[in-house]
Amino acid sequence: MSVLIIMGSKSDSAIAEKAAKTLDSFGITHKTVVASAHRTPEYLMKVVKESTAKIFIGIAGLSAALPGAIASYTHRPVIGVPVSGKVNLDSILSITQMPPGVPVAAVGLDNGENAALLAAEILALNDPAIDKKIQAYREEKRKAILEGS
Amino acid sequence: MSVLIIMGSKSDSAIAEKAAKTLDSFGITHKTVVASAHRTPEYLMKVVKESTAKIFIGIAGLSAALPGAIASYTHRPVIGVPVSGKVNLDSILSITQMPPGVPVAAVGLDNGENAALLAAEILALNDPAIDKKIQAYREEKRKAILEGS
Amino acid sequence: MSVLIIMGSKSDSAIAEKAAKTLDSFGITHKTVVASAHRTPEYLMKVVKESTAKIFIGIAGLSAALPGAIASYTHRPVIGVPVSGKVNLDSILSITQMPPGVPVAAVGLDNGENAALLAAEILALNDPAIDKKIQAYREEKRKAILEGS
Amino acid sequence: MSVLIIMGSKSDSAIAEKAAKTLDSFGITHKTVVASAHRTPEYLMKVVKESTAKIFIGIAGLSAALPGAIASYTHRPVIGVPVSGKVNLDSILSITQMPPGVPVAAVGLDNGENAALLAAEILALNDPAIDKKIQAYREEKRKAILEGS
Amino acid sequence: MSVLIIMGSKSDSAIAEKAAKTLDSFGITHKTVVASAHRTPEYLMKVVKESTAKIFIGIAGLSAALPGAIASYTHRPVIGVPVSGKVNLDSILSITQMPPGVPVAAVGLDNGENAALLAAEILALNDPAIDKKIQAYREEKRKAILEGS
Amino acid sequence: MSVLIIMGSKSDSAIAEKAAKTLDSFGITHKTVVASAHRTPEYLMKVVKESTAKIFIGIAGLSAALPGAIASYTHRPVIGVPVSGKVNLDSILSITQMPPGVPVAAVGLDNGENAALLAAEILALNDPAIDKKIQAYREEKRKAILEGS
Amino acid sequence: MSVLIIMGSKSDSAIAEKAAKTLDSFGITHKTVVASAHRTPEYLMKVVKESTAKIFIGIAGLSAALPGAIASYTHRPVIGVPVSGKVNLDSILSITQMPPGVPVAAVGLDNGENAALLAAEILALNDPAIDKKIQAYREEKRKAILEGS
Amino acid sequence: MSVLIIMGSKSDSAIAEKAAKTLDSFGITHKTVVASAHRTPEYLMKVVKESTAKIFIGIAGLSAALPGAIASYTHRPVIGVPVSGKVNLDSILSITQMPPGVPVAAVGLDNGENAALLAAEILALNDPAIDKKIQAYREEKRKAILEGS
Repeated sequence: MSVLIIMGSKSDSAIAEKAAKTLDSFGITHKTVVASAHRTPEYLMKVVKESTAKIFIGIAGLSAALPGAIASYTHRPVIGVPVSGKVNLDSILSITQMPPGVPVAAVGLDNGENAALLAAEILALNDPAIDKKIQAYREEKRKAILEGS
Repeated sequence: MSVLIIMGSKSDSAIAEKAAKTLDSFGITHKTVVASAHRTPEYLMKVVKESTAKIFIGIAGLSAALPGAIASYTHRPVIGVPVSGKVNLDSILSITQMPPGVPVAAVGLDNGENAALLAAEILALNDPAIDKKIQAYREEKRKAILEGS
Repeated sequence: MSVLIIMGSKSDSAIAEKAAKTLDSFGITHKTVVASAHRTPEYLMKVVKESTAKIFIGIAGLSAALPGAIASYTHRPVIGVPVSGKVNLDSILSITQMPPGVPVAAVGLDNGENAALLAAEILALNDPAIDKKIQAYREEKRKAILEGS
Repeated sequence: MSVLIIMGSKSDSAIAEKAAKTLDSFGITHKTVVASAHRTPEYLMKVVKESTAKIFIGIAGLSAALPGAIASYTHRPVIGVPVSGKVNLDSILSITQMPPGVPVAAVGLDNGENAALLAAEILALNDPAIDKKIQAYREEKRKAILEGS
Repeated sequence: MSVLIIMGSKSDSAIAEKAAKTLDSFGITHKTVVASAHRTPEYLMKVVKESTAKIFIGIAGLSAALPGAIASYTHRPVIGVPVSGKVNLDSILSITQMPPGVPVAAVGLDNGENAALLAAEILALNDPAIDKKIQAYREEKRKAILEGS
Repeated sequence: MSVLIIMGSKSDSAIAEKAAKTLDSFGITHKTVVASAHRTPEYLMKVVKESTAKIFIGIAGLSAALPGAIASYTHRPVIGVPVSGKVNLDSILSITQMPPGVPVAAVGLDNGENAALLAAEILALNDPAIDKKIQAYREEKRKAILEGS
Repeated sequence: MSVLIIMGSKSDSAIAEKAAKTLDSFGITHKTVVASAHRTPEYLMKVVKESTAKIFIGIAGLSAALPGAIASYTHRPVIGVPVSGKVNLDSILSITQMPPGVPVAAVGLDNGENAALLAAEILALNDPAIDKKIQAYREEKRKAILEGS
Repeated sequence: MSVLIIMGSKSDSAIAEKAAKTLDSFGITHKTVVASAHRTPEYLMKVVKESTAKIFIGIAGLSAALPGAIASYTHRPVIGVPVSGKVNLDSILSITQMPPGVPVAAVGLDNGENAALLAAEILALNDPAIDKKIQAYREEKRKAILEGS
């Protein structure tokens, strides 16, 4: 399995599914688990430490500690997706403003697709098949815009 | 020991000292450790789990995950102090906007004194000596204002 | 009675009920009153001063002065719940940014459940029965996540 | 005495002095006291209730509850001056976002001069001497700009 | 006529009506006009300069220049009501942050009722009948809360 | 004269000078006046209405009504420069969020240079000499970066 | 063709149409294309470089790079329209805060009408027919307000 | 060369140097160039397209379009570092809020160190030597905290 998608709560599953579907389209193996940084910290630690995933995607709203918590247990790349709510700046800033030493790669609010794409770009560095699929994906997006105008 | 003060980085020690000094003035035993939610997660877990402290004070800036991480390992009261920086809303919102089920008691930006006072108020519920000292402290503050005007 | 829930306006009753229900689940006695810091300041003062509650929960939106006003009349712990509206940063900052000397324990926006939990955690310091119930509650939350993934 | 200036803390005295000096220039009698909504609520209540001032100016930073607290004790006009700090939106929103029924007239951040001017404008409605002085003040400001360009 | 209510656009009429109705309840004469600081500046100037109103209420959203523009043409008290929209901080800050020399009394977002109440408080300084009605209004609000709890 | 620079207060002159110097470098005639939307509204109206300038640059901080006020008196292009202060979002939003019907072209905080450049770009549409100078300016900026790397 | 309207995504077409309709009402020729700064950067470059349009209008939300990207390829005037979404400050600040040297003329959130009007004002500097139409448009707006009150 | 650091302006070189020094400590080859998305768009395109770097780091302030512009020219991973200034939310949101299809991995304000670390983590997926060095780096950070407390 290449990518482990972790969401802090089942209510974030629409975004997780978007990420999963995008990974599928690149032929990237993945798995999704629910593990909360605040409610199941030890389970989260176990999940991350035992995982052989190359990349982690953490999806969380509010005081979105999940991506940072994942990053505290691994030095493999962690991508964080802030989830929208009543404030929005809370999850964006919680995920972006990590302290020096423990990076998280933040993408935009609710942007599960970009989290998956970023994972694909990272994996493509050593996987020509994924690389080709990203190029095709980009070309398709490009054409959709060119033909749409 | 009644209160364990945990700061995420040595750079937050001015605020920790303010809290410690305030606890001292109430005769409350305390200890301060540096333990980072992101850089030493397992040490933090060990510190919190092994602690016999009744109350925890977590001091952190930026994506201030520390108080929430403490709260994930204990169900004793956790007080969070956001530390000021270039953004300020980051630490305030990271500490305030905890998900349902794992509360943190947030006080104001850099407000180590109020964190200690809140701890004192909690302990005073079962400690008449502290209760008396808080009343005296409050009276002193009150007088300082009355005489100053 | 252990906890007095005060809301600034009847329109905040959904959040007060959430807090009340959570306290019920811990077997904690409580009472809810409507008392406005701005519209009934003397009634509020009387309510707080005459109350034998160990902990106060203040629920308010906009310029959410209520929790701070409660804290000005008592040195027992006061938990503040900001209520969402058109701005949200108004109630969050009004409750969080208390001046040194008069602490309020702020929880997240509309988070009546966490206010009750924090009260339970405080009371559990001297009440093993509540302590056990919090552990069970936490375990249940934990299981819900583990089984849900 | 026409105007009572109340500041929540001695640290706000520069702004209070600015307001006082501006009132002086209009020949308006005034007095300044330090009274905190949070630290001396009963003294504040007493000060407001016993005052014969026609207008109140409340100066406060952070969770700036002072002007609203004054307004809760009187139905005479209350002018609120938010004081700058590390966040600024806290005091601006705390003073502006009063609930329906208890108005505060908010002026700009640290703007003691405008608080005094607003008080003067209100008093001028029934005092031709002040009215004349405001006109002269405005004319002077106008000329300073015209001659400066 | 005692109070002139000016709104920048017909779309703000719900707030203007709220203010008007509140003024009616105090027996205060008033009139409402639509005059835009940006679209009809000269008409606005004429309206303000020719008005014999004692107090002006300006209601505006977005870059809410209207209350400040009114205040630039008169030295009688001007009350500003920010109107909610997609940003909200825009109208709140535009109305609050007036430069020294030209005060506006800002009330809360969409708070036409408080604008009218503030006007009533000002007029009550020299009108015992209004004063009595405000006291009755406050008492009624107070009772509604006391009976509601 | 092609461009009239209006600043709301002499304290904004550093930004006005930056704009003036940039216009000079393009050989564009200009003049700078101090005229406040709030303190000298009629003078501002007169200045704008009598001006033969093709473009107006309005520079203002806080509740930055100046550019919008200029735009209310002319249908020639008005460029607005928000000036930094303690809040910054106040002047940015006041200048950006103009109502439909009266546009202002907002540039960035304190960015007098871009205001002048935008004016130059507009004038260049019918002045090949300015057009050439902008191209040279751009080329120079480009080279400075290329050589600097 | 005088004005080229570029939108970053088809989802912004309602705002583009508003701009187009307003340009139509001034008899200004225009064309609308979809070209994304991020998804079709080379197509965007080609579109801008080959265009003979006098003025560009760029419409974009989120990290709204489109207007700035257009401005990087041309020194003709570029007007930027931020599109509303879940955050709003993102697109407003992305378009407003351009670096010195490459100006964008930002208008308000979703304000396609003002973008078109600003374009019309610029073109009117050398086109008396458009100038007359703007005057008529303004007069109409003015009358609508005067008659509406 | 493994990592290409691109900064939008020479004024960002302190952050670029921090990133470079961190990469050096992991034995990762890198190069730094100055290339502006707004002032040298074609040079930027050429630099990115001709680069054989595996990862790009884009450093920019204000309307920080640079990382997104890099990402528009490559499908290799792009890390964005927002640079602090007078607003801060501008660069954070500009870099975070990328549209679906073109991801940028945002790190915290001025956090050149984390950008380099994230690059190292990505490269370590296929380079055991770097992987070992990251583990050592993390261990060192961990020890620094443990010994410091």
